[in-house]
Amino acid sequence: MNALSLQAQFIRIRSNKLFEIFVISVIVFSALLVGAKTYEMSPTMHNLTQFLDWFISAFFLTEITIRFLAEERKRNFFTNFWNIFDTLIVIVSLIPAEDADLAVIARLVRVFRVLRMISIIPELRILLVSLVKALPQLGYVMLLMFIIFYIYAAVGSTLFGTINPTLWGDITISLLTLFRVMTFEDWTDVMYETMEVYPLSWIFYLTFIFFTAFAFLNMVIGIVVNVMEQENELARKEKAALEAAEHEQEHEEEPTLSDILKHIKSLQQQVEQLSPQSAQLEKK
Amino acid sequence: MNALSLQAQFIRIRSNKLFEIFVISVIVFSALLVGAKTYEMSPTMHNLTQFLDWFISAFFLTEITIRFLAEERKRNFFTNFWNIFDTLIVIVSLIPAEDADLAVIARLVRVFRVLRMISIIPELRILLVSLVKALPQLGYVMLLMFIIFYIYAAVGSTLFGTINPTLWGDITISLLTLFRVMTFEDWTDVMYETMEVYPLSWIFYLTFIFFTAFAFLNMVIGIVVNVMEQENELARKEKAALEAAEHEQEHEEEPTLSDILKHIKSLQQQVEQLSPQSAQLEKK
Amino acid sequence: MNALSLQAQFIRIRSNKLFEIFVISVIVFSALLVGAKTYEMSPTMHNLTQFLDWFISAFFLTEITIRFLAEERKRNFFTNFWNIFDTLIVIVSLIPAEDADLAVIARLVRVFRVLRMISIIPELRILLVSLVKALPQLGYVMLLMFIIFYIYAAVGSTLFGTINPTLWGDITISLLTLFRVMTFEDWTDVMYETMEVYPLSWIFYLTFIFFTAFAFLNMVIGIVVNVMEQENELARKEKAALEAAEHEQEHEEEPTLSDILKHIKSLQQQVEQLSPQSAQLEKK
Amino acid sequence: MNALSLQAQFIRIRSNKLFEIFVISVIVFSALLVGAKTYEMSPTMHNLTQFLDWFISAFFLTEITIRFLAEERKRNFFTNFWNIFDTLIVIVSLIPAEDADLAVIARLVRVFRVLRMISIIPELRILLVSLVKALPQLGYVMLLMFIIFYIYAAVGSTLFGTINPTLWGDITISLLTLFRVMTFEDWTDVMYETMEVYPLSWIFYLTFIFFTAFAFLNMVIGIVVNVMEQENELARKEKAALEAAEHEQEHEEEPTLSDILKHIKSLQQQVEQLSPQSAQLEKK
Repeated sequence: MNALSLQAQFIRIRSNKLFEIFVISVIVFSALLVGAKTYEMSPTMHNLTQFLDWFISAFFLTEITIRFLAEERKRNFFTNFWNIFDTLIVIVSLIPAEDADLAVIARLVRVFRVLRMISIIPELRILLVSLVKALPQLGYVMLLMFIIFYIYAAVGSTLFGTINPTLWGDITISLLTLFRVMTFEDWTDVMYETMEVYPLSWIFYLTFIFFTAFAFLNMVIGIVVNVMEQENELARKEKAALEAAEHEQEHEEEPTLSDILKHIKSLQQQVEQLSPQSAQLEKK
Repeated sequence: MNALSLQAQFIRIRSNKLFEIFVISVIVFSALLVGAKTYEMSPTMHNLTQFLDWFISAFFLTEITIRFLAEERKRNFFTNFWNIFDTLIVIVSLIPAEDADLAVIARLVRVFRVLRMISIIPELRILLVSLVKALPQLGYVMLLMFIIFYIYAAVGSTLFGTINPTLWGDITISLLTLFRVMTFEDWTDVMYETMEVYPLSWIFYLTFIFFTAFAFLNMVIGIVVNVMEQENELARKEKAALEAAEHEQEHEEEPTLSDILKHIKSLQQQVEQLSPQSAQLEKK
Repeated sequence: MNALSLQAQFIRIRSNKLFEIFVISVIVFSALLVGAKTYEMSPTMHNLTQFLDWFISAFFLTEITIRFLAEERKRNFFTNFWNIFDTLIVIVSLIPAEDADLAVIARLVRVFRVLRMISIIPELRILLVSLVKALPQLGYVMLLMFIIFYIYAAVGSTLFGTINPTLWGDITISLLTLFRVMTFEDWTDVMYETMEVYPLSWIFYLTFIFFTAFAFLNMVIGIVVNVMEQENELARKEKAALEAAEHEQEHEEEPTLSDILKHIKSLQQQVEQLSPQSAQLEKK
Repeated sequence: MNALSLQAQFIRIRSNKLFEIFVISVIVFSALLVGAKTYEMSPTMHNLTQFLDWFISAFFLTEITIRFLAEERKRNFFTNFWNIFDTLIVIVSLIPAEDADLAVIARLVRVFRVLRMISIIPELRILLVSLVKALPQLGYVMLLMFIIFYIYAAVGSTLFGTINPTLWGDITISLLTLFRVMTFEDWTDVMYETMEVYPLSWIFYLTFIFFTAFAFLNMVIGIVVNVMEQENELARKEKAALEAAEHEQEHEEEPTLSDILKHIKSLQQQVEQLSPQSAQLEKK
């Protein structure tokens, strides 16, 4: 009985508009604190941020506990991705920052509190979900791109490995160098260096740029066409629903050709009935 | 009476084609003057530009006054955004340029006179308005992008702050460095520097480039889809209007099925009326 | 009479397939010669290219003369843009290359012979025409972009002119520097230099990049929407033509509602005529 | 008889799911081996990779032989592009890697085994085919782009050949330099160097960037429009098929206007027949 009334109270707190605004404020404030801690600070300020950090940790823990207790079925709480997401961020940011070795990790973990901005704003949540949904459709183009990268990296480290081991030492480094070439970042420096040994190595770079640019373009077009199709699909469905509604409406007011034919046929029967009578009349 | 005739005269001036052309010429000339003043000049030339500057200021003040006086309801004048825009530019460019401290500011302010080119050409005004209108629809994507930037900047300044304070000193500098990485401007120099301390820091840069590129692509697609939808909406409305017009036209010439049914029903009644008569006839 | 038969012969030459192929071969060969002349050559080779050059000039002159003489109305020849284009290239490349001062100019002019590749291949001609046609529609976006560039260049040379005159000396140099910033080419070097004097000058660069990227994006979308609309317009016209054809076909087979109503009305009159007869009958 | 039963067995092996999975595993493993060989290795490891290499070669040879023998008509085997593709890769990777001179080539050739990933995954095969199919449609835009490059390269090596032979020595090097300018890679360094001799040479670079960017944009739009059209074509066909199906369905239930007219006409005849009778009746 007591537990139930407590849960009712938690639900009331969770649904409270003021509480929601307060939660968002604390999240924004924690984001600002994360930024502030990157500046040089006086010891007083440092202690203050330390205290605020603990306050935010405690508040987040309280908030997630309230949300958990307010849930009628505890199981449902963990079927929601965003609840798990929030819980993980809160738990992980409880790591104490005092230990010198863990200090950096603890600070880094606190940075991810900013991600709660995404889980608290529904529009951002929708945006992220739609971004993630778009990824698997590009799977095969990305696999093709990886194969291109892999082959060029293998060729690159085989041929240029001895010229500049920093850039072409092994296949991992070569992949990084090729990514650099793809972003056009000082790619001519990389090319001119190998062209001194293999004068024709410009073919290697130009074909690589051509293939990746082409595959990338294909990926972009894939996304655009995909988005367009979804839009068109939506538009078509809306149009169909509209037409169906119109059709129904018309149905009441406007007779179909079948209705008219029915009437004409009954008319014909009437006229037919009329004729024999006239015929009989004639006989008279 | 006198005031009225004066206003009439002002309206006549404002609507005068020659006056309009003269205003545009002065604006273009003031733009050229702004450019000319960036070159080295002899004292004579300097005095000439000084004089021309004052003439343009005076002319712009006169022009805006005429437009203000020509307005029938003075209140309406300030409800138009472009009137406020022009008035602000004119007033602000009245700051005297003699004072040594203010000289640079006064010169800068005069540069913004070139913006009057936008307010005077209707097509540019429409273009700018449509650009500004497109912005808020991208709000959430830009917020998401800012959150990505913020988190990476916080992580960057936490991890790399001691390696190179010029690039990663605090969160503001880190944001600027990340923008640089996003434009692929010497981003490998930034990366190689941190990779000497953290060999795996390439993950930081590659995921950042991936996320921002993906969010940016999403933004571009958002704009494209948005523009396309507006176009389609327009096309649909035009089509609907056309069909409605056609329908109306048809209506006059072409009867509906309801009209036909009405006629058939009246015919049936006529025939029905006929039948009993025949029946009566039969009885006879 | 003789002139006429000569013209007929010229027309025959112009329409000859073999002649056409030969003209294209000479153009391709002249393009290769242009490339070959950029390599170091022995005196023998140099003399050979010199001779080939004269041969090509003579051939082009002959070809254009034939085309001109084959034209029935000499006026029409110069109303065709591509005839003027070809004639200009041919005439201009007759400048003697012996004079040392003019040698470079003469060589440059010969390069433009490659442009005849465009005038001889119809598909390239169509492509170029459609490219040129797309330009004016972008006029206002490009004007807006120029205004943005001009204002930033004026501000840049006013503020940064003393910091680095090579980059910001006057408005022309500033425009070039801004174009460099727009292409992201070492733009951070430009920025870091001015940030030492004005620490907030990153605002100048970031807003500039934002505005130009936005205007550029708008331009691209403008072209895409434009192209799409043309495609849709074409599709719509085709559809309308198809429907019109269908409608006509249907018209022969299928009566309209008006036709049916006409028949029903005449039927009603017949029945009406019938009724009074019956009525008369009744009276009897 | 014996040969036939052998072939049947080969077909059974080829269609075996386990065999297919094993083939894919070996291909993935050979790709990993290619990557592993770019790292420094102990002699034992080196011998192991050597052995694995031979095993993979032998396995691929066996697999292709089975597929060849399983083919009922041997001719058909070589009409399939992917069979030829696989056979070539397998045969070429049989080159012995022991010879010092051929060692690098043999290693390179083994890299191309990774390409078998494309031939074994149907989705990648489809993707590649559609990419290749999109190429010829861009032929003329690419020819136009090459002409632009060629002319600028010829002009560049004529004017700037003496300033920096490394960049503008002959037309081939100039083409490479122009490609570098197109990717915006340190293009201002190239420009500033020539501007010291020809102060107006920025016009050369800016027009080149403008033309190539414009042609490139046109190419991208060409691909997008092309893809869109294919999509629309598909959608239109689907719609037409749907409408045709609907039309047929409607036909059974709904009479056409012609049917109705037919009935009305027969009704009119009936009434007409009725009238004379009535008339006769009247005469009586």
